[in-house]
Amino acid sequence: MRATVIHGPQDIRVEEVADPRVERSTDAVVRVTHACVCGSDLWAYRGVAARQAGQRIGHEFVGVVEEVGAGVTGLRPGDRVLAPFVWSDGTCSYCLEGLHTSCPQGGFWGEVGSDGGQGEAVRVPFADGTLVRLPRDLDETLMPAVLALSDVMSTGHHAALAAGARPGATVAVVGDGAVGLCGVLAAHRLGAERIVILGRHQDRTAVARRFGATDVVAARGEDAVAAVRELTDGQGAAAVLEAVGTEESMRTAISIARDGGAVGFVGVPHGGSAGVDIGQMFNRNIALRGGVAPARAYIPELLADVLAGRLDPSPVFDLTVGLSEVPEAYAAMDGRRALKALISF
Amino acid sequence: MRATVIHGPQDIRVEEVADPRVERSTDAVVRVTHACVCGSDLWAYRGVAARQAGQRIGHEFVGVVEEVGAGVTGLRPGDRVLAPFVWSDGTCSYCLEGLHTSCPQGGFWGEVGSDGGQGEAVRVPFADGTLVRLPRDLDETLMPAVLALSDVMSTGHHAALAAGARPGATVAVVGDGAVGLCGVLAAHRLGAERIVILGRHQDRTAVARRFGATDVVAARGEDAVAAVRELTDGQGAAAVLEAVGTEESMRTAISIARDGGAVGFVGVPHGGSAGVDIGQMFNRNIALRGGVAPARAYIPELLADVLAGRLDPSPVFDLTVGLSEVPEAYAAMDGRRALKALISF
Repeated sequence: MRATVIHGPQDIRVEEVADPRVERSTDAVVRVTHACVCGSDLWAYRGVAARQAGQRIGHEFVGVVEEVGAGVTGLRPGDRVLAPFVWSDGTCSYCLEGLHTSCPQGGFWGEVGSDGGQGEAVRVPFADGTLVRLPRDLDETLMPAVLALSDVMSTGHHAALAAGARPGATVAVVGDGAVGLCGVLAAHRLGAERIVILGRHQDRTAVARRFGATDVVAARGEDAVAAVRELTDGQGAAAVLEAVGTEESMRTAISIARDGGAVGFVGVPHGGSAGVDIGQMFNRNIALRGGVAPARAYIPELLADVLAGRLDPSPVFDLTVGLSEVPEAYAAMDGRRALKALISF
Repeated sequence: MRATVIHGPQDIRVEEVADPRVERSTDAVVRVTHACVCGSDLWAYRGVAARQAGQRIGHEFVGVVEEVGAGVTGLRPGDRVLAPFVWSDGTCSYCLEGLHTSCPQGGFWGEVGSDGGQGEAVRVPFADGTLVRLPRDLDETLMPAVLALSDVMSTGHHAALAAGARPGATVAVVGDGAVGLCGVLAAHRLGAERIVILGRHQDRTAVARRFGATDVVAARGEDAVAAVRELTDGQGAAAVLEAVGTEESMRTAISIARDGGAVGFVGVPHGGSAGVDIGQMFNRNIALRGGVAPARAYIPELLADVLAGRLDPSPVFDLTVGLSEVPEAYAAMDGRRALKALISF
């Protein structure tokens, strides 16, 4: 089969690789129908996150079960399934608590020795615990929205929950990437009244407004802090979503939080802890919560809303490519010519 | 009157100062009957926290109202009162929410231009909002326990709440100072089942055991992390109280937290943010919450328990001195010959 492989910075190739097969009784093999490229894939593309040459890449996909191991009881060939960006056994104490990302048997698609999502098929460990079955009669036009639950929408939801977004709340979102935009949508879905997005790309903040943002702050650093304070009676936002992961974005997020509020952080940290202003957190009782989102825990609830037409994160996709064009999709996202690329098989 | 004044590192003096008087209509003057020395006073004593020469010091006191301004309606001369370690107006949005430490009109005893708690009398701004009236017939033997609510017990309670200590929880407490010990007591009061204290001073961990600690880890750094993991099925504690404020203590606190758990931090940060391991927090979804404790919000609830005989933090006091001996009390605490000194007037 063909799959996307990363050989080094800026070196993404689509290559012939070994077909996946059931190796353990709890495995399934899934034929991928839809996948996408994530902003976090760009960390690897840019060489910031280390990868071994030849490692697979991609961690978001929807597909059809092709084969299951003898121990898989909840799925059968022909089932349409959505994969969260982390696999998990579904039976350990963490999975049962809804923190599937801490499953001791869990792992990330594309890690050494595993398949990535940006390929024609994937071997899925712990298929019963990992995959979410989709309705057989699922409207094809909903596929992009469903695919977004694999990571960015679930991650935005995690940030919103961690920040304490709730009915009537004032929320600020740092970052206008796909996760930040989904954070806006999640905060809106949770009933936030005022949603301020910090972002400087007009096409993206336009999506944010569609998703429920009430205010746009097109500044960074101190200027952004001043602007958010001005919008919030000088107090800041009770709930702040940090969806970038740099030192500066973390510093901004903490600085625009209202005293007693919380920063929900889901941007993969790439700047160390220097942006975590512990003095400000202490003096103003600002909480910092979040991390890698347990998408598997959120998908059932979010999927129900997508199927009912109440939730549509699909506008984060502004480019659709075929598998052979994946390298160009990375380049387009890296160059900010595209927000998020959908791969249609 | 006489009051404690700090002139520089290791230079604490008891001097004659101007008598406090009502300056604003919302002020009261309180004659101090009991005060104490806080571990956080030692940061100033050691020169780590900057103070102007001649600044007052001390922020915990109980006393009797001597005079009130015309605008004070809830107190009158003769009332016995307890002061939290921060004054606050009691009427702003933060005070009404229970985050009195963020009151825009609030301040700390001993800050430039204000009286400190370690003196014969104190001018109390916003007396109605700040002071908590005590029963007139209060048993004198309960005074040390009541005084502890001014800071250390309320701060321990804040840490326990921030960490999510609750019935059945496994809690770990980093630090065996008075706040750490009160954190143990608070966690026990909140129903924690297992309470591990990290501390190396046997006399202090003995108090921790009296307060409800079930396990003592007399190690630091990596050894402490390994020991706590061994005690908790390899997972760590769901609720961790950080009651020291150094880089190492913060790193330890995060490392011994269970995935999905929280660190409640109340140690005044003196090490910057380098100990805040944001990568670990992200990968394991560990929350960091806490800060300066809104003691004023907690005192009514905790006081009721003290008066009912259900809560007794008084064992944190192991030295009683008169006002003239306060410099020796600082030296004793600095040299770890005393845990916490009570000043009786």
